Amino acid sequence: MDIKIIKDNLNELRTVSPLVHNITNYVVMNNTANALLAVGASPVMAHAIEEVEEITTISSALVINIGTLSEKWIDSMIIATKKAKDLGKPIVLDPVGAGASKLRTETCKRIIKEACPDIIRGNASEIMALMDSNIQTKGVDSSHETNEALDIAKAMSKELGNTIAITGKTDYVVSNGQVVEIENGSVLMGQVTGMGCTATAIIGAFAGVAENSFEAAVSALAIMGIAGELTEEVAAGPGSFQMSFYDALFGITEDDIFAKLRIQSYEA
Amino acid sequence: MDIKIIKDNLNELRTVSPLVHNITNYVVMNNTANALLAVGASPVMAHAIEEVEEITTISSALVINIGTLSEKWIDSMIIATKKAKDLGKPIVLDPVGAGASKLRTETCKRIIKEACPDIIRGNASEIMALMDSNIQTKGVDSSHETNEALDIAKAMSKELGNTIAITGKTDYVVSNGQVVEIENGSVLMGQVTGMGCTATAIIGAFAGVAENSFEAAVSALAIMGIAGELTEEVAAGPGSFQMSFYDALFGITEDDIFAKLRIQSYEA
Amino acid sequence: MDIKIIKDNLNELRTVSPLVHNITNYVVMNNTANALLAVGASPVMAHAIEEVEEITTISSALVINIGTLSEKWIDSMIIATKKAKDLGKPIVLDPVGAGASKLRTETCKRIIKEACPDIIRGNASEIMALMDSNIQTKGVDSSHETNEALDIAKAMSKELGNTIAITGKTDYVVSNGQVVEIENGSVLMGQVTGMGCTATAIIGAFAGVAENSFEAAVSALAIMGIAGELTEEVAAGPGSFQMSFYDALFGITEDDIFAKLRIQSYEA
Repeated sequence: MDIKIIKDNLNELRTVSPLVHNITNYVVMNNTANALLAVGASPVMAHAIEEVEEITTISSALVINIGTLSEKWIDSMIIATKKAKDLGKPIVLDPVGAGASKLRTETCKRIIKEACPDIIRGNASEIMALMDSNIQTKGVDSSHETNEALDIAKAMSKELGNTIAITGKTDYVVSNGQVVEIENGSVLMGQVTGMGCTATAIIGAFAGVAENSFEAAVSALAIMGIAGELTEEVAAGPGSFQMSFYDALFGITEDDIFAKLRIQSYEA
Repeated sequence: MDIKIIKDNLNELRTVSPLVHNITNYVVMNNTANALLAVGASPVMAHAIEEVEEITTISSALVINIGTLSEKWIDSMIIATKKAKDLGKPIVLDPVGAGASKLRTETCKRIIKEACPDIIRGNASEIMALMDSNIQTKGVDSSHETNEALDIAKAMSKELGNTIAITGKTDYVVSNGQVVEIENGSVLMGQVTGMGCTATAIIGAFAGVAENSFEAAVSALAIMGIAGELTEEVAAGPGSFQMSFYDALFGITEDDIFAKLRIQSYEA
Repeated sequence: MDIKIIKDNLNELRTVSPLVHNITNYVVMNNTANALLAVGASPVMAHAIEEVEEITTISSALVINIGTLSEKWIDSMIIATKKAKDLGKPIVLDPVGAGASKLRTETCKRIIKEACPDIIRGNASEIMALMDSNIQTKGVDSSHETNEALDIAKAMSKELGNTIAITGKTDYVVSNGQVVEIENGSVLMGQVTGMGCTATAIIGAFAGVAENSFEAAVSALAIMGIAGELTEEVAAGPGSFQMSFYDALFGITEDDIFAKLRIQSYEA
């Protein structure tokens, strides 16, 4: 994938300022809204059954995040994803904590079945929790964790025909037999709540302007990782990291992308 | 309006520390609480039908913000506003996203009908969404956006007999044929989530101590704008702006007000 | 109590990274998650009736905070506390605003009755609101506020057979006839929303690794107070205080504890 696409998508995002509809968790709503504003998008949070279809309709992308589920919110997520599917709007799913409870795992599987998201972003264990047991991977006893995450992403993407992003020390984006690995980021991102959720929201913003889901996910994770590195240079700990990360997202330049991006792409 | 009123209201606010009851949206609750504390007020968030009347009763003002509505919250908003009306406590409404969905527009109209807020603060499009179609303004094709916002505020205020505040590059406060325009503020306020919601909450705090709604709204928006300018001087982007804004609200002095306030008042 | 215990508990916390299940209020969820991460624990927020038992089961401690109650959340709190009790997992209760509404007071009393928390942390007025009227203390007209808070803590602890922590200018931890007073902290902690809630969550984290509830509460409040003092040295106001507090929690060292701790313990 040409690096130029990332730069062009960021410019387009800042020009168009796509409206991103978030049905997300209570913990990160403020972070999500601020990250979307900082990168150049417009956030809207709406979860009432009575309004989600209208809000999805006026938005450029829908982001579903299951971090603090309850019954009515699940209903709204289903209604909104179906509406987005009908309208051909990109859907991004963040399966926060999938595997930690049946409610989380089954809600994700239900969303995938009823209106399969164009992009799913999680960490390796969350994505693994969503796999049907009959999918073949090298499994948890894979000799290299790296290989395992990549295997999972490939298997999920092939099964669902969509884009799977697994984030961690290395981020993997897999779609239609193509793989991109992104090495950017900061260890402090793991010490701040909701950085994964922020990544998912930013993917939603890029999905609102990019040519396809794969390029949206790669662009978003590249920008996240580079912003993380820029932030690390000025942060004294996780508190100042969270704050300065928005400054970095807001200020990131083409030169930052060309200077810092550590990416490789290949056929799966 | 005499500038001295703003200063006196701020002193009174810091002395009395009025309790402000917020039924607000999930995104900004933390911001709202911190902004109220920083300016000198005491925040309380309570939305359960079982307790809103008690909390309104012990509070000095009620702030209703519809940013993340759902059915039960609407019921609580109605109960609380009626209680506040019965007790003669000031009510401030923030019609977040009015016009974006029927639920939002109609909830605001219902609140206005059942217990009309003393003050409504929104941006121009939100306020416009609340107007009855039979109100005459120069309309959206007004030659100057400034004129349009002012026309809307005048028409709303006259119809409802209350104070209307429209915030944007210039803030307008209109009540009973009087107009105040405030030019203070920072462009970065638009890059941080919930600055409008914060303005509304701060209006609630001033309504708890000011002589009337008009002076409360003017005082609050003047303080917001000046704090925004103080913050801009130290902020490196939207993240540090959000953080430093509380420091500015906390530290703002009489001298800051006299040195920075850019305000004009006249008869409508 | 030996200061070494505090240091050992902090080391253990950072090594084990206990999972802390929070059913808490909307205002502070982000703060809570960040504070737990910064001190070295792992936060999980889950409130759905369908999943709270599973989440409590995989967690090392349960923190219940009633700051923004509603009916279904109360049901979940009861279910989770009973589960934690059955499993012998430590429960920490934060009675936010007890006394301000019947709903809050009665919810706390119900939790105490059905599955008494191992630790309750509140300010003096919240704890006082939870006392049965037949408990004898020197009352609100005590000549010294200090004496009064301590009396309340002693009475509550004796009645419930658990650990009571009352925080304020001086923090008191009382359990089984033992008293610890902690003088650390910063006045700015009162100007930031949710510092009490953060203290409660940090107590939960320490309860996940400490030998008993008393040592958990003392360790947590000592760390909170010292982190507050470290933060005050770099904060320009409440906004920067909130941010830098996470940096301080993350960076606090053994030397900080030994240099700054101001604590005394004695028999009640």
